[in-house]
Amino acid sequence: MRILISGVTVVPVTGPADVIRDGAVAVDGGEIVYVGPSAQAPGGFEADRVIGGLEMVALPGLVNAHTHAAMTLFRSYADDLPLMRWLQDAIWPLEAKLKAEDVYWGTLLACSEMLLGGTTTFADMYFFMDRVAEAAAESGIRASLSRGLIGVAPGADKALKESRRFVRDWHGKANGRITCMLGPHAPYTCPPEYLKKVIKLAEELGVGVHIHLAETRQEIEEIQKRYGCSPVALVARTGLLDLPVLAAHCVHLSAEDIAILAEKKTGVAHNPESNMKLASGIAPVVQLLEAGVTVGLGTDGAASNNNLDMFEEMRSAALLQKVASGNPEALPAYAVLEMATIGGARALGLGDKIGTLEVGKRADIILLNLRQPHLWPPHDVVAHIVYAARAGDVDTVIVDGEVVVENGKLLRVDVDTVLDNARRCALRLVGRPKERSLL
Amino acid sequence: MRILISGVTVVPVTGPADVIRDGAVAVDGGEIVYVGPSAQAPGGFEADRVIGGLEMVALPGLVNAHTHAAMTLFRSYADDLPLMRWLQDAIWPLEAKLKAEDVYWGTLLACSEMLLGGTTTFADMYFFMDRVAEAAAESGIRASLSRGLIGVAPGADKALKESRRFVRDWHGKANGRITCMLGPHAPYTCPPEYLKKVIKLAEELGVGVHIHLAETRQEIEEIQKRYGCSPVALVARTGLLDLPVLAAHCVHLSAEDIAILAEKKTGVAHNPESNMKLASGIAPVVQLLEAGVTVGLGTDGAASNNNLDMFEEMRSAALLQKVASGNPEALPAYAVLEMATIGGARALGLGDKIGTLEVGKRADIILLNLRQPHLWPPHDVVAHIVYAARAGDVDTVIVDGEVVVENGKLLRVDVDTVLDNARRCALRLVGRPKERSLL
Repeated sequence: MRILISGVTVVPVTGPADVIRDGAVAVDGGEIVYVGPSAQAPGGFEADRVIGGLEMVALPGLVNAHTHAAMTLFRSYADDLPLMRWLQDAIWPLEAKLKAEDVYWGTLLACSEMLLGGTTTFADMYFFMDRVAEAAAESGIRASLSRGLIGVAPGADKALKESRRFVRDWHGKANGRITCMLGPHAPYTCPPEYLKKVIKLAEELGVGVHIHLAETRQEIEEIQKRYGCSPVALVARTGLLDLPVLAAHCVHLSAEDIAILAEKKTGVAHNPESNMKLASGIAPVVQLLEAGVTVGLGTDGAASNNNLDMFEEMRSAALLQKVASGNPEALPAYAVLEMATIGGARALGLGDKIGTLEVGKRADIILLNLRQPHLWPPHDVVAHIVYAARAGDVDTVIVDGEVVVENGKLLRVDVDTVLDNARRCALRLVGRPKERSLL
Repeated sequence: MRILISGVTVVPVTGPADVIRDGAVAVDGGEIVYVGPSAQAPGGFEADRVIGGLEMVALPGLVNAHTHAAMTLFRSYADDLPLMRWLQDAIWPLEAKLKAEDVYWGTLLACSEMLLGGTTTFADMYFFMDRVAEAAAESGIRASLSRGLIGVAPGADKALKESRRFVRDWHGKANGRITCMLGPHAPYTCPPEYLKKVIKLAEELGVGVHIHLAETRQEIEEIQKRYGCSPVALVARTGLLDLPVLAAHCVHLSAEDIAILAEKKTGVAHNPESNMKLASGIAPVVQLLEAGVTVGLGTDGAASNNNLDMFEEMRSAALLQKVASGNPEALPAYAVLEMATIGGARALGLGDKIGTLEVGKRADIILLNLRQPHLWPPHDVVAHIVYAARAGDVDTVIVDGEVVVENGKLLRVDVDTVLDNARRCALRLVGRPKERSLL
């Protein structure tokens, strides 16, 4: 399949001023073979398909660097609650009832939402991961998948074995769209001796590690009390950060923690809306970027967000850093767009494959339609993407060289089937619907 | 025109648990004549038009309680700048070049965006207000309009006279959709002696006052230095707060200021995204609501937002209060929905006419389509509206009993004409487009 995107504005995310008016992107066999002015596109390129349109903007697909996709089934089930009541009274009892089939439909619902909203890659940590992988593979999205591991749980060693099997079955599958990591949940649920087993397995399998790190004040206090150091220092001490690591949240960090993350080249997944909604705190994103840490952007699960909308997440990231620092220059639009694309790609260990529009990269490309009242007049296409655009503005989505969304419609997924099954699963899980439920 | 909305979920915003499944709203002559279960809708009601649809949600139109509509022309023209550079180097030079025609097209662009996104009423402060009123009247939206008054400017008294003429020409026009207020810009640009002239004129005309109040730390310091008190105390001392007042921002308030606003029944327009983007600060919304102050929600102008999206504004308001207070229970979904509807209506002095779906009120109603991946499954319709929905989910918009948006399309406004004229005006204003401009 050869695709030529032509006569559009290209924002390749290779530099703050890199905007190609009347630009083109050519794709052959899933790979980007040309990015530049339409007029200079390779002459002999015979496209099977030409995509274009005045006022269309092509940019790299967005990378959701941290989520729990199947938690879409719990969207708006429990809000405005303190973290422990939210977990203990609402989320954990539902998760205890989850079956493999629920996870499949919840993930397919999430993939549908993400693809329609311009997200072409996501990093997931959950369970029943075979079904997550199936749903991701079917939908056409790219995914980095980790089975969640709780070191203090009875089945901890069995879960490691399952992880080995899962990685062997899925890593590199779906033409490379599915990659795997190990998923130790967090330092407060995975003690150092367990993390050492995880390290050993990761080395054996040649994969990275996805972990929650320094999310809440409570975690900082607990680790400090138990081990006399910060969560970042603790995991560094185990050797974990010598592996490629994707660390979600990193809200509460000391200057020393930031230096460790920079030195170890740990990738951070910043989740501003989840951190705000659960009142976890404000991550020091400006300081992380200044220290040279790779930062991506994630939505976290839909239960604490309540959507998987990376456009919103970009806007919230920028606005939150500005108001928190009292500095309107903090985290400008382009820096946020980088986080949502190449930053996330690097944090997932995929920076050489995706995250920008450059020759030789896999073709994960989205097209936005700027000709709409809320995106007009187009004074600055990058500021528009970050400060004004919505997930619903995505017209076309290409993943690994395949068109998976066209005119805002999914091509691989039957949305009605997904919605009907997701409703059925949600109903079974909650039993009696809540007061304001329409289930 | 008699409209029957039937077989939908009705969220009338009359109480946190008020959700009518399979509900109906009947409209006759622009007025709501029934709200309740579809099965009990008045038997003899012969509708000219029936609107329905499984998975549709009807709620009051959103009220944008503070904006400068024509500033859509500057959307994304200047971002990530300190406030004074933003104003002095970017915004003011452009505003100096504005002609009446620009304001007309900029406002029509804003009205198009707002209606498509479910906003049925906006409060505006700008200049060339006759053209603002024309654009609002033509688009079908409801508007509360104030000519901005700068007391320290040379034409200050002339501007008061123009305001009198504007109010006499427009207050109550377009079947009552257009109402007027006086618009003294702020205490630091309108000294007490000028505010006293404003008060006199407001009393003569029988209208309220729209003012910026306590927006930045700089304003607090300046007023403290000049007058030895806070901006709120200063305007209270002039007698201004004895009138119906819509006070925009109110970011920096003492406990005493909050008590004054409560006692004087001053309406507050909270603008979270503008306050975040310009790093002005975080308004004490929870404390204002606890003190019994009426709080609405606004987007401010598109130059500091960069859109006029009230769904986003709802979400940002909730998330910001939670993270700022460290309390995830702060400002729950229903409280935010109230702010965006009846709160704003009351702050504009229109609480008896609009803001809820109740018999006897004017029919400002919007319909959202919940059957979409990012709004599924529908565990809680109110949480969905605030935490997951987008402006693009609005299917139908009714203002004053007239359908102005149907299937997400404007019925009164030709969008292409608006976009083309807005681009032309924007090009003339900026002269040479910026690096990332597509003008």
